[in-house]
Amino acid sequence: MTPRNPDYEKTVRDSFAQQGLMGHLGARLVRVEPGEVEIEVDFDDRLTQQDDFFHAGVTGAIADSAGGYAAMTLMDASTRVLSVEYKLNLIAPAIGERLIATGRVVRSGRTLTVTSIDVHAVDGEARIHCATMLQTLIGVADGR
Amino acid sequence: MTPRNPDYEKTVRDSFAQQGLMGHLGARLVRVEPGEVEIEVDFDDRLTQQDDFFHAGVTGAIADSAGGYAAMTLMDASTRVLSVEYKLNLIAPAIGERLIATGRVVRSGRTLTVTSIDVHAVDGEARIHCATMLQTLIGVADGR
Amino acid sequence: MTPRNPDYEKTVRDSFAQQGLMGHLGARLVRVEPGEVEIEVDFDDRLTQQDDFFHAGVTGAIADSAGGYAAMTLMDASTRVLSVEYKLNLIAPAIGERLIATGRVVRSGRTLTVTSIDVHAVDGEARIHCATMLQTLIGVADGR
Amino acid sequence: MTPRNPDYEKTVRDSFAQQGLMGHLGARLVRVEPGEVEIEVDFDDRLTQQDDFFHAGVTGAIADSAGGYAAMTLMDASTRVLSVEYKLNLIAPAIGERLIATGRVVRSGRTLTVTSIDVHAVDGEARIHCATMLQTLIGVADGR
Repeated sequence: MTPRNPDYEKTVRDSFAQQGLMGHLGARLVRVEPGEVEIEVDFDDRLTQQDDFFHAGVTGAIADSAGGYAAMTLMDASTRVLSVEYKLNLIAPAIGERLIATGRVVRSGRTLTVTSIDVHAVDGEARIHCATMLQTLIGVADGR
Repeated sequence: MTPRNPDYEKTVRDSFAQQGLMGHLGARLVRVEPGEVEIEVDFDDRLTQQDDFFHAGVTGAIADSAGGYAAMTLMDASTRVLSVEYKLNLIAPAIGERLIATGRVVRSGRTLTVTSIDVHAVDGEARIHCATMLQTLIGVADGR
Repeated sequence: MTPRNPDYEKTVRDSFAQQGLMGHLGARLVRVEPGEVEIEVDFDDRLTQQDDFFHAGVTGAIADSAGGYAAMTLMDASTRVLSVEYKLNLIAPAIGERLIATGRVVRSGRTLTVTSIDVHAVDGEARIHCATMLQTLIGVADGR
Repeated sequence: MTPRNPDYEKTVRDSFAQQGLMGHLGARLVRVEPGEVEIEVDFDDRLTQQDDFFHAGVTGAIADSAGGYAAMTLMDASTRVLSVEYKLNLIAPAIGERLIATGRVVRSGRTLTVTSIDVHAVDGEARIHCATMLQTLIGVADGR
């Protein structure tokens, strides 16, 4: 997984800073490597569902962004990345101090990229695997 | 689709009011009918991705909630509803003044419920079908 | 949904005839209309899972083909159609004399097409909705 | 991943032998371990799509069975396993002498099990990752 864009980290960080939703959720871009990106979000009463766990929408939002940015690390600087679709399995209650979404590129094709994202809830010493996502993205040449 | 809980609308509205995330996104519960629920959210700079469209995480969050509450309208008052998984296809850019997610129950089984959710972006007179979700939920007896 | 290929039905029928698997399963192409295709398969002991229902693999195979051919009806004659991914929900046991998969185009884009497929099991007078699929396809110019 | 059923391998092999479709496709149960099962199928003209690759329906069928049997290795002998849903990403053309589907349990819950399945096409020395599936299953007590 060799990045074609030497400034891939800056490209990703600039794009993340423009995502209003990531700021609104209090999400942070923790790690940006070729084909792998990590996003974290701290627990907050404004991010819950009815049982006071993290809402699946938060899990989905940071997982979608982690997968999309993992894809972006392997693209040309001028290519825009759009999510085509994703599937999210919620495998344990998202309870804890924070959520960490780790996105990894499974396959980087000419047009489409497939990523896999795992989300863990960190609660003290415990790190619980609470969700897994499989995502498809499309790279679109800028200007199109 | 006959609700077993005569107060299904109150049950749904009370639960929605407890979801911190729905308030934080500015989402509103528009319509609650047996097997069908509609949730809206107005455009806001805090809900965007890098191109200033609605972030897929917002689309996913209101679609997940619309499907979950559509399922809840057909359950016993004491049953908790949890999303097992969902798949979201983003079929057009989510650009507009607001998003509307309409969740409908496809099948309400003993343990599992399957729902289908369509999301439209409303922009002036235009109403664009921007996403479709297929979702699986589980009903869990309270106290478990 | 206006077909760009006036011979869309012939194009679809010729392609179907080349799919070794459809013949091996005994599947028939029942109906080919712009944006909508129906495929049927009769029950046979060779198509079962361990409880003697239709195997989910049969349901998935005819649903995938019905969606793919629905997409193909709206494409140029020279464009190849490939499944990118699909999600299949099995909502009732697939028991009956035959299965019918009805594929419909949800959105036909420049590069990607999204389809929705419903599968019914026909058992005497009963017609049971046993599965629903959401599928993404890509059109590739021939020669690529 | 400790099997509760000491005869898990026999239970799985007996069930596989009852699946008419696996025999009809020429699929073999290669490996049965706690939480992990491998199924293979050789190339045959009767298993193709229109370009003479393996049909996605074959990929889906052996992946679905591999995931289902991986789940079954961790269940009571009397529990029936049914696929709730799965999502399959086709990430490279399925060209080769045979396909191998490797199913692994991601999470084994009280009611639901989540599995991940990778499918490789073997072509001479090459082993190409051609598909990945994320699957949800339900364990149902026999007699229900």
